[in-house]
Amino acid sequence: MAATLRILLAAGARIDPHEVAVGQQVYLGGVSSGVAPDAWETLRRTGVLLKGPITTPQGGGYKSVNVTLRKALGLYANVRPARAYAPFVATHHPAMDLVIVRENEEDLYAGIEHRQTDEVYQCLKLVTRDGCERVVRYAFEYARAHGRRKVTAMTKDNIMKLTDGLFHRVFDEVAAEYPDLQADHMIVDIGAARLGARPETFDVIVTLNLYGDILSDIASEVSGSVGLGGSANIGASVAMFEAVHGSAPDLAGQDKANPSGLLNAAALMLTHIGQGEVAQRIQNAWLCALEDGFHTGDVAGPHTLQHVGTQAFADAVIERL
Amino acid sequence: MAATLRILLAAGARIDPHEVAVGQQVYLGGVSSGVAPDAWETLRRTGVLLKGPITTPQGGGYKSVNVTLRKALGLYANVRPARAYAPFVATHHPAMDLVIVRENEEDLYAGIEHRQTDEVYQCLKLVTRDGCERVVRYAFEYARAHGRRKVTAMTKDNIMKLTDGLFHRVFDEVAAEYPDLQADHMIVDIGAARLGARPETFDVIVTLNLYGDILSDIASEVSGSVGLGGSANIGASVAMFEAVHGSAPDLAGQDKANPSGLLNAAALMLTHIGQGEVAQRIQNAWLCALEDGFHTGDVAGPHTLQHVGTQAFADAVIERL
Ligand SMILES: CC(C)[C@H](C(=O)O)[C@@H](O)C(=O)O
Ligand SMILES: CC(C)[C@H](C(=O)O)[C@@H](O)C(=O)O
Repeated sequence: MAATLRILLAAGARIDPHEVAVGQQVYLGGVSSGVAPDAWETLRRTGVLLKGPITTPQGGGYKSVNVTLRKALGLYANVRPARAYAPFVATHHPAMDLVIVRENEEDLYAGIEHRQTDEVYQCLKLVTRDGCERVVRYAFEYARAHGRRKVTAMTKDNIMKLTDGLFHRVFDEVAAEYPDLQADHMIVDIGAARLGARPETFDVIVTLNLYGDILSDIASEVSGSVGLGGSANIGASVAMFEAVHGSAPDLAGQDKANPSGLLNAAALMLTHIGQGEVAQRIQNAWLCALEDGFHTGDVAGPHTLQHVGTQAFADAVIERL
Repeated sequence: MAATLRILLAAGARIDPHEVAVGQQVYLGGVSSGVAPDAWETLRRTGVLLKGPITTPQGGGYKSVNVTLRKALGLYANVRPARAYAPFVATHHPAMDLVIVRENEEDLYAGIEHRQTDEVYQCLKLVTRDGCERVVRYAFEYARAHGRRKVTAMTKDNIMKLTDGLFHRVFDEVAAEYPDLQADHMIVDIGAARLGARPETFDVIVTLNLYGDILSDIASEVSGSVGLGGSANIGASVAMFEAVHGSAPDLAGQDKANPSGLLNAAALMLTHIGQGEVAQRIQNAWLCALEDGFHTGDVAGPHTLQHVGTQAFADAVIERL
């Protein structure tokens, strides 16, 4: 986070960062949501959260902070770009450049689970017309605003004819309002396989929460850029930006972590708050640093690499702004 | 199916095939399950079904025959081997050779879906201790019987702590009874990504129904051998064998379909009924045919190919028995 903020300020981002506490320390301080009470007020005021990697204490029983924030703040769309940075980062799919828009509040993530008997357990998958419409419309608006051509929905509506069927139906309805964009639908099993094997054939994908969870990990892996991607969680009044990768508590404070995921999340944030030109400057400088062979230790690349620490990597980006 | 049966009989399989009707014609004849009434009696008597590719009429409202058969016959474990046949079939992962054992009756496939209002839809995910235990135990027994070393469970129990948590807990309990086998667990999003990128690191995977559906399509795609894999649906008293790929109605009757998927399913069937040596003979002859460059039109390979029709391909296998 420190490295990322340093780059943002050096690039001339007009931001006034306020720190709030979420995760490990808050849980251990006895707040079961993992979100410090005063954080909510700050979040509602600023409307924007850049979230660093957070840790949940071992041992279970703790609710995911991610899921809590998504639900409490009404962050209905999770936007996850996945692209190749060939030849600077190794991948079988140099042409891939796609965005997954994942529904972010409903589905099996609604958190409605029961133990009926010691032998029988249930989880409720919830899908609403509003939830579908919000995220599908967001996907089409995003596609149009970013010069993308095609939106692909993925569901399993050959089995779940009501719930996934609703998502598919709403998709078709909304798609009809965007005749300038192509729209198609795939069954998610075949879609996931195709995404793994031929990611370059996708543009924007919109899907339900759980499928989006799985698909975005596949996309990020085949791009070769796990650890490099940023994501946006969009709500009506608040938006949250974070790296796609999870936390690596064993790397904390060692000047080893790769700031790229959070930096790319910050670039999405700057675009969101109308500072797209600063975002562009940062991403160009970051790409130049990769091009010049700078990488933190986690990245494998085909050409000469200079493995450097977190702060040296940030310096390399700043020098290229 | 005709090509496959021809090979089976030529190889000396001791079988007495009875034909039963399922799918398109049965649906159109007004049987809503898609399974002809007299089929049930035959199935219960023989205990073994080799199922050809079937078609469901267009237009929705039809229940999947696959799901109906799995549930009505209590086929609790769906076994899907996925391996590379390099260099005869192109793949990035020549060393991959894994088996997915998928729970086959529960989860969101239980078919419990409701429309609460026109705006709110629900689907119930059902997980029982018995269901978990049956399939997990089957996976460990399978691994032991087939000289495999490791069983990996995949769940999303960081979100679904009760349902997926139960599967994970039962997995750990059963694993403790098989100290000769390695056992590990992955969250399914990361597991799916790893499967797509490094399938050679897996051996046996056991998982819930829907995850298994998605994971097996990924595995089959990265093996390069979609269209070549066979699968087994195992129940206490009946077993059903089928190709992993779906039907291709536009190829029917044109001598173009690839019989390999059904042939490999038939090999699993022969092993299941104690004719493993015939199965082995068939698979060797089939591999020799691939090695000699025989392929139906759907397969892309790196070396000289002879694209032949279904029956000529079967002849090539039979010549090599
Ligand atoms: C950590 C977990 C709760 C989360 C999810 O399942 O959504 C993660 O996998 C993600 O994709 O952001
Ligand atoms: C056709 C469909 C019902 C089936 C499933 O979802 O199980 C298929 O995708 C499969 O994997 O066998």
